[in-house]
Amino acid sequence: MRSLVLISAFFCFVCVSIATGQESSEFSQAIPVPAAASEELQAALRDWPRPDISAVPDVPANDDEWLANIEQSDERWASGIPLMLEQVPVQVVHDRLAGVNVHRVTPAEVSPANEKRLFLYVHGGAYVYGNGDAGIAEAILVANRIRIPVLSVDYRMPPNHPFPAAVNDVISVYKELLKSRSAKSIIIGGTSAGGGLALAAVHQYRNLNLQLPGAIYAGTPWADLTKTGDTLFTNEGLDRVLVTYDGFLAAAARLYAGKYDMKNPLISPVYGTFDGFPPTILTTGTRDMFLSDVARTHRKLREAGVIADLHVYEGMSHAGYLISPDTPESLNMYSELGDFINRYLD
Amino acid sequence: MRSLVLISAFFCFVCVSIATGQESSEFSQAIPVPAAASEELQAALRDWPRPDISAVPDVPANDDEWLANIEQSDERWASGIPLMLEQVPVQVVHDRLAGVNVHRVTPAEVSPANEKRLFLYVHGGAYVYGNGDAGIAEAILVANRIRIPVLSVDYRMPPNHPFPAAVNDVISVYKELLKSRSAKSIIIGGTSAGGGLALAAVHQYRNLNLQLPGAIYAGTPWADLTKTGDTLFTNEGLDRVLVTYDGFLAAAARLYAGKYDMKNPLISPVYGTFDGFPPTILTTGTRDMFLSDVARTHRKLREAGVIADLHVYEGMSHAGYLISPDTPESLNMYSELGDFINRYLD
Repeated sequence: MRSLVLISAFFCFVCVSIATGQESSEFSQAIPVPAAASEELQAALRDWPRPDISAVPDVPANDDEWLANIEQSDERWASGIPLMLEQVPVQVVHDRLAGVNVHRVTPAEVSPANEKRLFLYVHGGAYVYGNGDAGIAEAILVANRIRIPVLSVDYRMPPNHPFPAAVNDVISVYKELLKSRSAKSIIIGGTSAGGGLALAAVHQYRNLNLQLPGAIYAGTPWADLTKTGDTLFTNEGLDRVLVTYDGFLAAAARLYAGKYDMKNPLISPVYGTFDGFPPTILTTGTRDMFLSDVARTHRKLREAGVIADLHVYEGMSHAGYLISPDTPESLNMYSELGDFINRYLD
Repeated sequence: MRSLVLISAFFCFVCVSIATGQESSEFSQAIPVPAAASEELQAALRDWPRPDISAVPDVPANDDEWLANIEQSDERWASGIPLMLEQVPVQVVHDRLAGVNVHRVTPAEVSPANEKRLFLYVHGGAYVYGNGDAGIAEAILVANRIRIPVLSVDYRMPPNHPFPAAVNDVISVYKELLKSRSAKSIIIGGTSAGGGLALAAVHQYRNLNLQLPGAIYAGTPWADLTKTGDTLFTNEGLDRVLVTYDGFLAAAARLYAGKYDMKNPLISPVYGTFDGFPPTILTTGTRDMFLSDVARTHRKLREAGVIADLHVYEGMSHAGYLISPDTPESLNMYSELGDFINRYLD
């Protein structure tokens, strides 16, 4: 597989970093590039200088501004997909299932163990970004690296469709899948908002007495939409991707939650109970602003007696395995995810 | 069990925090007390204000100054033990094994599952502190909470006995134990330097073709004595216990390593290979300066295919579960450790 490193520029998460990054690639003397990260991740960090928190751009002020902002961001994200598909042998088919837009992402070769399995993928993007092709980059990586068929849910989002539309779409697709396959053949998950939405969906599956999936992939999940986790403060400005909570993240959270309480477990899944949850793999990095919320979710899973594996990558910002897919850290993370699937899925 | 909270004052790790803590208990506006930590841990953090890095005291300049510093610190640590033993029903017997000073710490009641097991405990203290009773606080907690017999190694330390004396003492005791019990009935481990020394000892057991213990407890291990890990920088001043690397930690590392390369895996175990290691439980916190080194060790274990469980506690500084033993986080951590022992020891 050729280098994916060029793709990283397309996945700035909330578009704060690139917009506000200092021109200089120098770092503060106090915080050097993490010397124990891989050479490749160090290089990626050097290419992506520490952002200037004070220069965070204004958030959209109304629905029209949001729609324009989302269109612009999604166009940039989607523009990386053709290049990615040149490099990665997967087939992407747009489809509808139970009235919901989905993408079927199939690798050139499915591994024998994964032939009867399905990765139900839930994309990230702060609950506002990632419509259409803008939301399938990680689905492509997963299909290619784990050699598993992926069904990516193109769920509805605000401002037109706030909570609970996204949860309902993931429920509809899952119910449809259960008509033709066992729950234990399915892993559900994704990164960031996708990880949070996967956890929220499983809360709701349990509420609805549905059979639960065989496993969950909670890639640095946005498990708490309130500004509570410690690393939202301690890693502010260190996390190249999220940069700061105040601005796009806080605004996107409000837009998504709408009139609902942000501590509703279907919005901020860390506030739910996790009894009976399937085995869950959680990933984060030492510079991830969501590190606290990943760790808190892990603890709640463990306190409920759930099998839950936590992986923390050195020097990695939020979703660094996806932003910098050519790093050994990224390859390692998807290798762990593949092993986890082999361990726990039928 | 009555409150252990008073004990915490005795376990400042390298005695920087208490010596330099600001009188005010106010926090920087930017970094509030972690709201998602337990009430008890939040209270402990309020009682232990953020230290002033610029006011770190001078490190001892020569062996005599070290010995005086160590004696003073160890006296303070040891002075908490009688109070602890009033509250916790364990018996402590001083003994010698294979020419090494040890403490046999036996709970009032050993759990049936743990009757034939042994916790080979290796104390912390930056490889300089923790002689005699100054090194048995966690052994007492482990014996009491997990209801397992503990053998705590009172290994030799610098300035009189630099590396490899400590490793050799842990080897000697372990070899002696293997004469009368199975390796798989033993878990080896401890916190901080104790966690690092346990990992180093297992490297050496493997070098010597000894049977490996059934499990390892690497409580926020000092796995890298060089100043490399990212969180040594990013959590500097946030970690109430370690505070800063520059000062006592760096000086203690030099004193311990002596003429040897600090990247020797028997000194900084993260630089070794981990093939064939027993199942290992690793614990840390989001504010732990050793978070990076714990995460790096976890990754190396996983890359070697070893069963390795990582637990990260919200808002916790280095060894917070030991410094603040009355917190739910501390009870939870030792509960996880007990479960881990049940899962993997014969």
